[in-house]
Amino acid sequence: MEKLVYAFNEGTKEMKELLGGKGANLAEMSSLGLPVPNGFTISTTACKHYQVHKELSENLLLEIKNKLEELEKVSGKRFGDEYNPLLVSVRSGAVFSMPGMMDTILNLGLNDFTVKALSQSTNNPRFAYDSYRRFIQMFADVVMNIPRHKFEDVLETRKKQKGYTFDTDLTTEDLQYIVDQFKYIYKTEKGSDFPANPQDQLIMAVEAVFSSWDNPRAKIYRDLHNISHTLGTAVNIQEMVFGNTGNTSGTGVAFTRNPSTGEPALFGEFLLNAQGEDVVAGIRTPEPINRLQEIMPLVYEEFVKIANLLENHYGDMQDIEFTVENGQLFILQTRNGKRTAQAALQVAIDLVHEKVIAKEEAIKRISTQQIDQLLHPTFSKKGLEQAILIATGLPASPGAASGKIYFHAADVLQAKERGENCLLVRAETSPEDIEGMIFSEGILTSRGGMTSHAAVVARGMGKCCIAGCSSLYIDEEKRELIYGKTVLREGDFLSLDGSTGNVFLGEISLEQTTTGSYFTELMNWADEFSVLQVRANADTKSDVQTALNFGVAGIGLCRTEHMFFEETRISAVRQMILSSDEQERQEPLNTLLEMQKEDFIQLFQLMKGKPVTIRLLDPPLHEFLPKKEEEIKKLAQELHISLAEIKNRISYLEEVNPMLGHRGCRLGITFPDIYEMQTRAITESAVSVYQQGIAVMPEIMVPFIGSKEEYTFIKERITKIIDDILIENNISIPYKIGTMMEIPRACLTADEIAEEAEFFSFGTNDLTQMTYGFSRDDTDKFLFDYKAKNVLKNDPFQTLDQSGVGELIKIASYKGRKVNSAIKLGVCGEAGGDPDSIRFFHELGLSYISCSPFRVPAAKLAAAQVALEEKQISKKQKQKQTVIF
Amino acid sequence: MEKLVYAFNEGTKEMKELLGGKGANLAEMSSLGLPVPNGFTISTTACKHYQVHKELSENLLLEIKNKLEELEKVSGKRFGDEYNPLLVSVRSGAVFSMPGMMDTILNLGLNDFTVKALSQSTNNPRFAYDSYRRFIQMFADVVMNIPRHKFEDVLETRKKQKGYTFDTDLTTEDLQYIVDQFKYIYKTEKGSDFPANPQDQLIMAVEAVFSSWDNPRAKIYRDLHNISHTLGTAVNIQEMVFGNTGNTSGTGVAFTRNPSTGEPALFGEFLLNAQGEDVVAGIRTPEPINRLQEIMPLVYEEFVKIANLLENHYGDMQDIEFTVENGQLFILQTRNGKRTAQAALQVAIDLVHEKVIAKEEAIKRISTQQIDQLLHPTFSKKGLEQAILIATGLPASPGAASGKIYFHAADVLQAKERGENCLLVRAETSPEDIEGMIFSEGILTSRGGMTSHAAVVARGMGKCCIAGCSSLYIDEEKRELIYGKTVLREGDFLSLDGSTGNVFLGEISLEQTTTGSYFTELMNWADEFSVLQVRANADTKSDVQTALNFGVAGIGLCRTEHMFFEETRISAVRQMILSSDEQERQEPLNTLLEMQKEDFIQLFQLMKGKPVTIRLLDPPLHEFLPKKEEEIKKLAQELHISLAEIKNRISYLEEVNPMLGHRGCRLGITFPDIYEMQTRAITESAVSVYQQGIAVMPEIMVPFIGSKEEYTFIKERITKIIDDILIENNISIPYKIGTMMEIPRACLTADEIAEEAEFFSFGTNDLTQMTYGFSRDDTDKFLFDYKAKNVLKNDPFQTLDQSGVGELIKIASYKGRKVNSAIKLGVCGEAGGDPDSIRFFHELGLSYISCSPFRVPAAKLAAAQVALEEKQISKKQKQKQTVIF
Repeated sequence: MEKLVYAFNEGTKEMKELLGGKGANLAEMSSLGLPVPNGFTISTTACKHYQVHKELSENLLLEIKNKLEELEKVSGKRFGDEYNPLLVSVRSGAVFSMPGMMDTILNLGLNDFTVKALSQSTNNPRFAYDSYRRFIQMFADVVMNIPRHKFEDVLETRKKQKGYTFDTDLTTEDLQYIVDQFKYIYKTEKGSDFPANPQDQLIMAVEAVFSSWDNPRAKIYRDLHNISHTLGTAVNIQEMVFGNTGNTSGTGVAFTRNPSTGEPALFGEFLLNAQGEDVVAGIRTPEPINRLQEIMPLVYEEFVKIANLLENHYGDMQDIEFTVENGQLFILQTRNGKRTAQAALQVAIDLVHEKVIAKEEAIKRISTQQIDQLLHPTFSKKGLEQAILIATGLPASPGAASGKIYFHAADVLQAKERGENCLLVRAETSPEDIEGMIFSEGILTSRGGMTSHAAVVARGMGKCCIAGCSSLYIDEEKRELIYGKTVLREGDFLSLDGSTGNVFLGEISLEQTTTGSYFTELMNWADEFSVLQVRANADTKSDVQTALNFGVAGIGLCRTEHMFFEETRISAVRQMILSSDEQERQEPLNTLLEMQKEDFIQLFQLMKGKPVTIRLLDPPLHEFLPKKEEEIKKLAQELHISLAEIKNRISYLEEVNPMLGHRGCRLGITFPDIYEMQTRAITESAVSVYQQGIAVMPEIMVPFIGSKEEYTFIKERITKIIDDILIENNISIPYKIGTMMEIPRACLTADEIAEEAEFFSFGTNDLTQMTYGFSRDDTDKFLFDYKAKNVLKNDPFQTLDQSGVGELIKIASYKGRKVNSAIKLGVCGEAGGDPDSIRFFHELGLSYISCSPFRVPAAKLAAAQVALEEKQISKKQKQKQTVIF
Repeated sequence: MEKLVYAFNEGTKEMKELLGGKGANLAEMSSLGLPVPNGFTISTTACKHYQVHKELSENLLLEIKNKLEELEKVSGKRFGDEYNPLLVSVRSGAVFSMPGMMDTILNLGLNDFTVKALSQSTNNPRFAYDSYRRFIQMFADVVMNIPRHKFEDVLETRKKQKGYTFDTDLTTEDLQYIVDQFKYIYKTEKGSDFPANPQDQLIMAVEAVFSSWDNPRAKIYRDLHNISHTLGTAVNIQEMVFGNTGNTSGTGVAFTRNPSTGEPALFGEFLLNAQGEDVVAGIRTPEPINRLQEIMPLVYEEFVKIANLLENHYGDMQDIEFTVENGQLFILQTRNGKRTAQAALQVAIDLVHEKVIAKEEAIKRISTQQIDQLLHPTFSKKGLEQAILIATGLPASPGAASGKIYFHAADVLQAKERGENCLLVRAETSPEDIEGMIFSEGILTSRGGMTSHAAVVARGMGKCCIAGCSSLYIDEEKRELIYGKTVLREGDFLSLDGSTGNVFLGEISLEQTTTGSYFTELMNWADEFSVLQVRANADTKSDVQTALNFGVAGIGLCRTEHMFFEETRISAVRQMILSSDEQERQEPLNTLLEMQKEDFIQLFQLMKGKPVTIRLLDPPLHEFLPKKEEEIKKLAQELHISLAEIKNRISYLEEVNPMLGHRGCRLGITFPDIYEMQTRAITESAVSVYQQGIAVMPEIMVPFIGSKEEYTFIKERITKIIDDILIENNISIPYKIGTMMEIPRACLTADEIAEEAEFFSFGTNDLTQMTYGFSRDDTDKFLFDYKAKNVLKNDPFQTLDQSGVGELIKIASYKGRKVNSAIKLGVCGEAGGDPDSIRFFHELGLSYISCSPFRVPAAKLAAAQVALEEKQISKKQKQKQTVIF
């Protein structure tokens, strides 16, 4: 029979899958000799069983009974004993940490008799009844689903009657009265007395924890963090230690380093005379951890020692929960601390410098999402200069966000569907708000500290958050935010700076952040390990500069048409498009030739010999034409043709399905002079830069190729132009001609095309559109429904669809290499920035991926990570092989 | 060294590839002992050599010299001899007959000396000089490219001066004068005397024939008939026989059966005192062949015998050219006669009945194009009742055509580009008109007979033609057609009935022809041999009836949306589309349910248990909505909503790329009640028909599937509805659910989809659109250019693109069968009617193809042909194997 319950001394930190994160770490700390309250863990296996059978098995009940008896022996107390009762905490502990998502019950074992025993044994009746009312409240909420506010109302009414400010003002009599009221509420709600038998309490509590695995907020959290729904949770049962026995007790949470900035110094909070949930829930605002040094210097010293020991032992920043009971320190939990992207970066790199971990490990520890967050925008300087600061709260999670304020998660969801940018504004957040947090740009609370629910969850999401901004009064009911005499209502604009805690009135424009030396160091390390090169999609000087700052290997996609939209140029472009024949087209083409040359000269000068892939004109011509009557009139005047004539020509260019229309190489075939002009511009500027003594490596990419015949038609023409110019100038410049693979047919006939092409660049955006039959402009009509109905898991424009689109890329790579082993294969498109997709491209052995400049860092990191993964796997396989042979 | 020249007794009819069709048949007839003028053939190998080297090789010249000497011996004449000169004809003869496309020179060997010898030896100076002037004229035209009209002008001027009507009125003196004039023209044009040396004449003539292989009209002809450009032509050199020696001579062409109707009786024409080109060119209108019986009964008797012998020998209707020289019959050529579709059908079937050929051979002999032609439309009865008949000509090629008249091929081309239907109207056509004939709907000439250029070529193309309509005066120069006192000009409408020779004023509406017993017999034979079944795409009762008349195996595609467009229904459809929620949608859905049930009941009743594949709603909803302001207003009133509101809803449904938008199963997922209604309608009507004692076999097809998840979502819902209804009625009806494979991703992930689907029906139209990235609605912008620039050979919507789209179909078939060996695979789309595509589907082992009803016969024939082909190949392979083992 499989063992279902483990004493702490039976486990290690490696047994997370069985014991949950919390249980494994409690076991680990026990064996390190740290002051952990005694207890045991019910395994995730038992939870999985419960998910199926909806009851605890006989075996499980027996094992719990046995372990409970051991606990009684060790503690010298007995469960339900009327003189020296054992009280326990019952805590969930999943494999992956899901803070606040599941249930905890403290002080279990109390009833009308044991409370008296506790009161006598501690000589502290106030503490005993405070614990009892907490227990009833938690049990009723967590196990029995009685609305929490019913209990809180009793508490608040009593405090108001007596003129109290804090819970700690309540006297023993108050608490006894409250306990009676609580039991009355329980009976009214449930029709039976509050369960007095501790065994019953325990079984019900364990079942409640198991059930909480499947509560809606836990499911949403798992979906958000890609955690499997089948893992289940463990349950930890521990002897209670009390932070609420008076002012020699307390409870706290601390990080071994600053989880917001990464700064290497203890960071945390502490609340005197309180139990754990008071800190986490953010109801009372706690004091910083270093206050402990003043109040309890010895406890503080011991804690610092333990914190250092744990960080070194786990090799990572720890998030530690502790309780002080009458001057004695207990460690309740340790885990790798959640952190902001900035902290993740600094901690990982500092740990390498401190020789705690290796570079490879540091690279693995930082996620690509975090890298993206590091590049989160901040407010523009100009915007900030004019901004009106209305309050400052705690800088709980960095980043900047502007949006309309909403006071309820449901309102945020609705506003988001309307396409608004929203901020979730609440007095405090609770796990029910999780969806509202996901869909808002930022979160603002008036209560709670740096480790409050809002702060922890927002940091995990990399979302801007300001917590405990107490100068604001937030009325969730009326949907109002009041500061001074001003009232803001739902839909008004605010701006939040999560790095400073500043709250500004109205909207402020954003700009990209700059990155520091830690960032650069990480990028350099990534280059050391990655195989797949990363290029950028860049059309403008500023894009190219950004890309170069991130250390790109080249430009993978320069969309020449983007150069056409500038106001000074669009007129020549339109003239070209609306010409009635080749002769008329010659003049605007000559104008554009000179303009394009300027662009390319700049590009080549900046790139200094790194490859630059330039795509010839791609979009359908009508995209360049004016849509408004007034503009059309203006254009007619410019071109000296009648309004009727110009409308005629414009309407001739209209298309039913422009995505599949007259674009890409199809333009190059019907109007060869356009591509000829572009080729001339590329070659002449390459020659000119080369003559300045700067290396150049142009790669000309023909878009929207569907057949070898199309490709050959164009390739022959442009090769001739290039070679003529090179011969004329009597120089030799390396260049390549290749194609964008973005039409399914091109992939299917890649063996034919590869006979002529020197490179393939997979354009995943268009390829996905055609492979799926999705028009990106139209999917909004059904994609929301598709996700809601589980018909589609990922947006295929974000994450490569490996079984469909990926299959085409595989086919094309295979067929292409078969006839042309030297062919260079790359990717450009949104999927180029997605880690799963990067793994796929790496495994296919492509040369490079190209993505927008700000996605380059994440792509480089992902490329390094997949290379390291592969190394590790092949190392393991080698080891295996060594064993075999 | 390879032999390049063959005497007739060295060849057989099987040596077409080497000797050309004409050469091989001359050799064959020689060995049959028929009266063929002596001669020899220069092989196609020599022509291929000439294409490369642009000169005749030494070997060839030597071989020609030798064969010429043999000919001199046999004939007792000598080339260039001043007393008894040998004269020869030099004729092209390609592997596949290309009538009128290449060059011929007669009477070669004449010069100022030999003409006198001929005059003396025949005692017929008029004949000698007539031959001489013909020779100079042909040689100058064919070999030297001197404009033909320069010679014709001389001839016409002389006739006018002398008041002659016919060429035969010219006297010896006239002809001598004309010869002098011709030589003068030659010298003026070429700067040198007309070549007097017969050896020189011969070499130049052979070179000219070889060169004519690559003249533009020959190339166009080969493109049209899919003849390879590399085959080359042979050259036949034969001793001249003369049809122009006087009234005991003549020349003619005859078919062993009627090439227009297939009727089994000799059919042809004869011209007294003429040479061959006079008949073929249609300059003089000849007399029917049976007139020969009166004029020369013995010759006629001999000719009938030979004709029968040749038809039996070749096993097919023959097209025979002959000349009578002073009462002696010579056969100049025999070949399988070109014929109309109707004739092809009747001849093939009659030959089976006459036991000349087998059924299999008959099936192979009829092309799918001919089958299509048999179904060519005729004028509607109603149209004919009101039509004004203005003339009747020869019914040269059947079919009916209406269009604007044009007098020059170039004008037809231009009009065609403007999208007009054209008729080519000329006094007579010549090979230069070939493109004009291709692009016109029909051809009308005022001169020439049933074997004139226009008639022969039109029949080959299956194009309607009326020839020799002499009551019309056609002025090509002025671009006018005159009948009586009325003048028609370019662009006026006419209608031609090629089966009766009737010419009508204006446009007449067309209707489909009915087919006779020959047709039915062929269709039955096709069913005997074919493996691939043929189904029809049919949505209406009349479509289904047509399909059943052609003997379809089932309905492969019933597009339910076509049932929605009827005026009485569209209103309910629009109401359904514009409903704001499911509840509002219920009422119109209930209305549509009843309507659809009526449709399906009719369908199942007609199909009597044959499979009926019904596709659920496919097109984007906006296709059903009104576009015009007025209609929109009306709809708003009907639906009791404001104009603003309705415009709002309509504009919400608009899409950028509707082809890739919210359609097919995407509608079924976002609005499940629509597909549920359709499924209910299908099932309830199937039950109702089944209860009438009629078998039913519904196959429900889900359109536009891209992933297994989509398919499963819908399949689960509709299966439940079907099963509920069947259980409710306590009956069991066989049914299938499957999917339309028309999205590339579906093909790539066919293994996943096949786990759930019972059949795949490849929708080649949409699959081609997405695989190519072609929007059918927009390809007109570049497809013309693509073909002109040789970037695209076939329209992929007509002929399956085997390397791209076909590859996807292969992948899907392979993957689908791998996981589900019972899966049924079929095709529907335009490509279902194309023979090459059918071969591809047959080889892939698909179960059926489905096409529009009128393409069913061609598809059935093609299916039988590919099955027979395969049988033959495997038979050959078996024979080979027998040899090997």
